[in-house]
Amino acid sequence: MEEQMDYSMAWLSYRKIPWYPDREYFRKIYVQENEAVIHTAAKELSRAAEAMFDESPQIITILKEAPENSSAGIYLYTDKNGPGNGGYHLYEEGGRLTITAEEPSGILYGCFALIRKVQRQQPLKNLDYKEVPDNPLRMLNHWDNMDGSIERGYSGDSFFFKNQELLINERTADYARLVSSIGINGVVINNVNVKENATKLISEDYAEDLKQLAMIFRNYGISLYLSLNFAAPMELGGLDTADPEAAEVRDWWEKQMKQVYASVPDLGGFLVKADSEGRPGPFTYQRTHAQGANMLAKAVKPYGGVIIWRCFVYNCTQDWRDRKTDRARSAYDSFSPLDGQFEDNVILQIKNGPMDFQVREPVSSLFGALQRTRQILEVQIAQEYTGQQRHVCYLIPEFKEILEFHTCCTKERDTVADIISGRAFPQFAGGITAVANTGSDTNWTGHDLAAANWFGFGRLAFSTSLSAGEIAEEWCECTFGPDKEITEAVCRILMMSWPAYEKYTSPLGIGWMVNPHNHYGPNVDGYEYDRWGTYHRADHYGLGVERGSKGTGYAQTYLEANASMYETIEDCPEELLLFFHYVPYTYRLKNGKTLIQHIYDTHFEGVEDVQKMIALWNGIRERIPEDIFMRVSERLEHQLEHAKEWRDQINTYFYRKSFIEDEKGRKIY
Amino acid sequence: MEEQMDYSMAWLSYRKIPWYPDREYFRKIYVQENEAVIHTAAKELSRAAEAMFDESPQIITILKEAPENSSAGIYLYTDKNGPGNGGYHLYEEGGRLTITAEEPSGILYGCFALIRKVQRQQPLKNLDYKEVPDNPLRMLNHWDNMDGSIERGYSGDSFFFKNQELLINERTADYARLVSSIGINGVVINNVNVKENATKLISEDYAEDLKQLAMIFRNYGISLYLSLNFAAPMELGGLDTADPEAAEVRDWWEKQMKQVYASVPDLGGFLVKADSEGRPGPFTYQRTHAQGANMLAKAVKPYGGVIIWRCFVYNCTQDWRDRKTDRARSAYDSFSPLDGQFEDNVILQIKNGPMDFQVREPVSSLFGALQRTRQILEVQIAQEYTGQQRHVCYLIPEFKEILEFHTCCTKERDTVADIISGRAFPQFAGGITAVANTGSDTNWTGHDLAAANWFGFGRLAFSTSLSAGEIAEEWCECTFGPDKEITEAVCRILMMSWPAYEKYTSPLGIGWMVNPHNHYGPNVDGYEYDRWGTYHRADHYGLGVERGSKGTGYAQTYLEANASMYETIEDCPEELLLFFHYVPYTYRLKNGKTLIQHIYDTHFEGVEDVQKMIALWNGIRERIPEDIFMRVSERLEHQLEHAKEWRDQINTYFYRKSFIEDEKGRKIY
Repeated sequence: MEEQMDYSMAWLSYRKIPWYPDREYFRKIYVQENEAVIHTAAKELSRAAEAMFDESPQIITILKEAPENSSAGIYLYTDKNGPGNGGYHLYEEGGRLTITAEEPSGILYGCFALIRKVQRQQPLKNLDYKEVPDNPLRMLNHWDNMDGSIERGYSGDSFFFKNQELLINERTADYARLVSSIGINGVVINNVNVKENATKLISEDYAEDLKQLAMIFRNYGISLYLSLNFAAPMELGGLDTADPEAAEVRDWWEKQMKQVYASVPDLGGFLVKADSEGRPGPFTYQRTHAQGANMLAKAVKPYGGVIIWRCFVYNCTQDWRDRKTDRARSAYDSFSPLDGQFEDNVILQIKNGPMDFQVREPVSSLFGALQRTRQILEVQIAQEYTGQQRHVCYLIPEFKEILEFHTCCTKERDTVADIISGRAFPQFAGGITAVANTGSDTNWTGHDLAAANWFGFGRLAFSTSLSAGEIAEEWCECTFGPDKEITEAVCRILMMSWPAYEKYTSPLGIGWMVNPHNHYGPNVDGYEYDRWGTYHRADHYGLGVERGSKGTGYAQTYLEANASMYETIEDCPEELLLFFHYVPYTYRLKNGKTLIQHIYDTHFEGVEDVQKMIALWNGIRERIPEDIFMRVSERLEHQLEHAKEWRDQINTYFYRKSFIEDEKGRKIY
Repeated sequence: MEEQMDYSMAWLSYRKIPWYPDREYFRKIYVQENEAVIHTAAKELSRAAEAMFDESPQIITILKEAPENSSAGIYLYTDKNGPGNGGYHLYEEGGRLTITAEEPSGILYGCFALIRKVQRQQPLKNLDYKEVPDNPLRMLNHWDNMDGSIERGYSGDSFFFKNQELLINERTADYARLVSSIGINGVVINNVNVKENATKLISEDYAEDLKQLAMIFRNYGISLYLSLNFAAPMELGGLDTADPEAAEVRDWWEKQMKQVYASVPDLGGFLVKADSEGRPGPFTYQRTHAQGANMLAKAVKPYGGVIIWRCFVYNCTQDWRDRKTDRARSAYDSFSPLDGQFEDNVILQIKNGPMDFQVREPVSSLFGALQRTRQILEVQIAQEYTGQQRHVCYLIPEFKEILEFHTCCTKERDTVADIISGRAFPQFAGGITAVANTGSDTNWTGHDLAAANWFGFGRLAFSTSLSAGEIAEEWCECTFGPDKEITEAVCRILMMSWPAYEKYTSPLGIGWMVNPHNHYGPNVDGYEYDRWGTYHRADHYGLGVERGSKGTGYAQTYLEANASMYETIEDCPEELLLFFHYVPYTYRLKNGKTLIQHIYDTHFEGVEDVQKMIALWNGIRERIPEDIFMRVSERLEHQLEHAKEWRDQINTYFYRKSFIEDEKGRKIY
């Protein structure tokens, strides 16, 4: 049965522009012959022009070289001397708008950049704009299951899978348009926890479907990737081992990859979660992660594929009584000794923090420790721990902080952005990926404002120097049109949302304090006596985890000067104080407040911030489409109630434990 | 497909008796003609004799009157002058063993009593034993769902239902044998939460199956009961209301009951959970529970049926911040004003405590408050909050305390046992029911020792004056044979198990402190900030819920002198101290210990008690069948680890909160 397609196009929902002076350029589009991606680009321009100002451009095929002395219009062509690696040059000269690039994908990105300028009604005359992506790999990881569910999905079911089958339809193409428009060039469609039928995605059963899907992606400059089950030789191949050093296992993978690449010759490669949270991996056979990853890497090398190997490895059966084991150390301890041992088509994928996508964590100490290994930074726009797309939480400011963190691995160019882009160690370029926040909901992301994270992630992945504010503004104007009042209100909401969420949830980097399993809503002791290594250690006197050299020593896994900075309470950045140290409630922060008063104050402030966000949103009611307004309003009301629940539970918990009164005498239960 | 039947017969697993002096009696059994239940009784005697000492009795049909001058053997016959109401007289005289009773069911119970004596190898010569059941209704409530699952079931799937169908097979008959052998005379086969197909149990769809099941039950003196969906007129009948005062609703029920009773003329009646935890009920229509229950009662009255109406009604969406609402008051507040308003075939079913089957609760204040209403005491042998049949927790001592509680409703005969039996208010006799602990496991109850609760409940329901120790001994010797060493070890384990469980879990009547949803394992704050009305209110200074007149006033819902006793910390029985009062950690108990030291000490002691239980069990290893020994051992080892987890979480929680050291300096985390 055909699915009913009923969804918006998010920031590509083109609005009519009543009077558009630059429509002239759009009468004719000159495109190169035989370049599918460039034809896609021209089609997108055409579609945008028709929708926004009823112009139906004539598309004219030209030779590969740009014609001299040609007439007004838009010219799309590759040029060996143009910007490479997906970059483009977009300029206007004498009535001609030109987009040139070394690669067809650059042309496509240039076209979407042009469309954004039109959506924002910016003048095109004398435009001269160059953009080259900072990161070779700019990916989305979908945690979609083949039964149609999405692990940690908060916006409906999967649009990639249903009833163990791939869905390939209009929405697939529209998904490709959306992600291509923000510069994404790689998509992993299935959950990293590869079980049951998902193991068979690399078998003949799904070959024809993958071929079709890859074709749709290919036209938009996107490579298809799959998550892999390390135990596939046993579960799929019927072998009695998956030992990466066993000849029959190597042979099986080689054979299997040959077959997969026969269907999809430009398959990007595979993402692997191994020896993590119960998934199989090389440890079963006393092999290292390097042995596991390299074995797979050799199998895909002939086809130009890569193996992306996740570093999210830790002991998930810890005893809460054990204060020596520290989950924060785990990725570092497992992978830093392997630096330099990986094949050049292996890329390690490292979560931004040492724990798991909390609202505040330090940057993983693996960044900087690894200097001879390709690395992908993994962030999560699915708001697992940041409000699950029922709370507004614009995460781009957080990602900016992560990217700009100085790891001290080189004298210059030592930030996370420098490392993953290859600026720090040019042989070892990688990229950035986000766990996706999309689903089959009408608006793709459940919360309409969560689309800013989707859009923003792509834009930031492409150009890490963009500011969070610039990106918010761009998303807002593409989505709602260039209306100053909307832009101001929405951008203020977005920019205050992450700090607000941090204020009313777990304080100063300690993390968790959420309900087990679903990870939603407050539960201070929810994980305190559990096996996940995620503790706050609060008692009558104070709270926090001692991770300096007198504690678990995690601070010492950083390079200098970071190690020294994190070592002491005095030097540790205050937003991470409880992550690195056990601190008494009476400790005075730099602003003169005690720790406990800071906890009380921020929790009251966080709720007030949500009230401000609601007032801002209500202020633009008449300017926002009714359905979007109502959807967002409903979620904001829930967010307010839920923020109060957080405030009251956290404050009550610490008041009952410390018995220290709120200086301001506010209601604590 | 036929189910593989593989299960023990629990305490009816007859053992060979190598030399049995009293086998003579079993050569001939004289039974009355035309009495199905008496024939069942004879068959049971015969089966027991064959299994235990290879005697195949000749069954001889006699006239209704006992023949004079008859020969040696066993005589089973009803006698208008014999004990009534299911009672029996079992005596030996001149080589004749006679069991006589006013009703056939009395004969059956007498036979099972005789079998128990044989199992225990007690002499039969000159035996003269009378037993009359204290309670008219002695029931089991199965919370079995039609998909085969069991709500709060800890011993496998349902043996009543599978795939929306009734299971009627050999195990059904064996179930009837087991429950009849302990005097149960009513069984509700389906979950009180009646949804989906279970609503249709009263429709033609299941009429034939119910007829068959009722026949099996009938031969063992058991009446079949069903749980009812109050909204059935809508969900099944297609009406647009279930208003008990609407004529079409009354008509629908009358019609429906006529049809049900046409299939099963002796159907006992119906159990109803209404307006509770989301189930439909009369409140939807602004009607009282009395109106709801009476409407149904009138519909079943022509057939002699009863309506058993549960009093488990409370607000399950409470705000944890609200200290005025008290779930403990709820049943009292809802039902005490309705006393005297119920039809005489309505029986209110009241949970033993005002909350929900915690390891320690006061007796519900509804007992004593209701004086013109029939009442059933509801206890739970499914160990939902008492170790889920992975921990040993012999509950008969608890049930004894409940039954012997003086409600002060009359000068004499004022205990709960007096009320439900009808001794207190003879017009208003009711009975006792237990939420069953059985399932499709080989041993019926998961934990082999949990069978003592099943057996014990039946025996206690029949004869409330039996002691918990007597019952334990009887169960043990029927199950394992009369081996003094086994009896001593097992009875010691059983008798120490409830106190041990209380010691290492939540202290002094406060309850909960368990993981939400599954209710298993420690989680001190698990329900503290939730909507279920189940709080401990612990802070740095103390803990407990103030339920005296300065608190929620629940203590004042008791009759004098109980109200005064519960009112003050000084007079309140210490085992219920935290249920009724907020008490500082430094408060000194009557034994001179502070409250906090009591918490620490009992939690260490509870674990030591489990260690003792393990030592006792290991001491009889050679005497216990290997499979049973291993199953119990495995569970005891788990219980020990789990008791330690309880100990450490509870002690750590209160140490971190109070910062008061353990006087004995033991390890607290």
